[in-house]
Amino acid sequence: MTRFTDLTDAAIAVVAEQGMRGLTHRAVDARAGLPLGTTSAYFRTRKALIEGLVGRLAELDNADVATQTLDPPPTDPTAFADAVAGVLDTWLTAGRERTLARYACLLEATHHPELRTILAYGRASRDQARALMTAAGVANPGQAGDHFVACVDGLLFDRLAGAGALTAPAPGTPENRADLATAVGKLLAAFTAS
Amino acid sequence: MTRFTDLTDAAIAVVAEQGMRGLTHRAVDARAGLPLGTTSAYFRTRKALIEGLVGRLAELDNADVATQTLDPPPTDPTAFADAVAGVLDTWLTAGRERTLARYACLLEATHHPELRTILAYGRASRDQARALMTAAGVANPGQAGDHFVACVDGLLFDRLAGAGALTAPAPGTPENRADLATAVGKLLAAFTAS
Repeated sequence: MTRFTDLTDAAIAVVAEQGMRGLTHRAVDARAGLPLGTTSAYFRTRKALIEGLVGRLAELDNADVATQTLDPPPTDPTAFADAVAGVLDTWLTAGRERTLARYACLLEATHHPELRTILAYGRASRDQARALMTAAGVANPGQAGDHFVACVDGLLFDRLAGAGALTAPAPGTPENRADLATAVGKLLAAFTAS
Repeated sequence: MTRFTDLTDAAIAVVAEQGMRGLTHRAVDARAGLPLGTTSAYFRTRKALIEGLVGRLAELDNADVATQTLDPPPTDPTAFADAVAGVLDTWLTAGRERTLARYACLLEATHHPELRTILAYGRASRDQARALMTAAGVANPGQAGDHFVACVDGLLFDRLAGAGALTAPAPGTPENRADLATAVGKLLAAFTAS
């Protein structure tokens, strides 16, 4: 861990706990247990701080994807759906703060055009999905891959902050993973059909 | 229009433009062009204000759904997918502020447990989806309906605030509606298959 990641991780925690409202250089200093002014020294502006935060999110998310053997993805559809479900469940439990921070930053970017660069955050998963669709022989693999990723992300948001948080199986349980795998399996079949 | 809806509509606009950070009773007074203290008279707490805002969102969203003849939904799958795509496109154009405000409020509820009641916002669309799945003879209509709604919502979020905002067809164009209808048609086939 470097000082840089200490600060970005503290920024993620601040956003997860208090929303974007709470994200100030001072709050990140306090959360990281570092002297006042440290965050400002690394990230001069709020924009730089948010970009650093989102870069760190992408790094951690990609590490989860690699851990779940999704890179390269399993060729067996059931194994693939289960691996995706495993990543999603991780993002609802150990990675919950990160997931919350990600959505908060993306929404912030909608009314701060200078932050639009962070919308490209999901590029890695889209590239993987496109490769998957290409391998399946889909007519328009870019479109199918983008749709697939957006729908999988919808399952995640629903359980994190939508009605699914009230009705779906609890995150971290085998029931949640199985429920997610059912949905992802259907998505996979739908979007890889030519 | 009543004073109540003037205030909730102003609150929606404030959140869309400034995020939850900007949502204060004072900001809503200013946005509505009403005397300082008006919003406080109608909504004593921030929680009451947010609940009023979300109730108004549900009312407006349901009106859009009714306009697009989704209630009752068309039985022809292509017509149904196109109608859903029409609603989504509306929520990215004329209803964009509302959609932004909805996601911002839902995220706010994740770190304010007293706001969890608003997570039920999507109940009407879920009930409709469950009825659709029941009519299709799906084994677990509640699960399939919830998955379907979550995935459709993922398409919306992606175009509003995700990578789709950079890559998908522009909201309000026939291309966007067609692209969304393609995705929704695949989802419908996937989740109504028994």
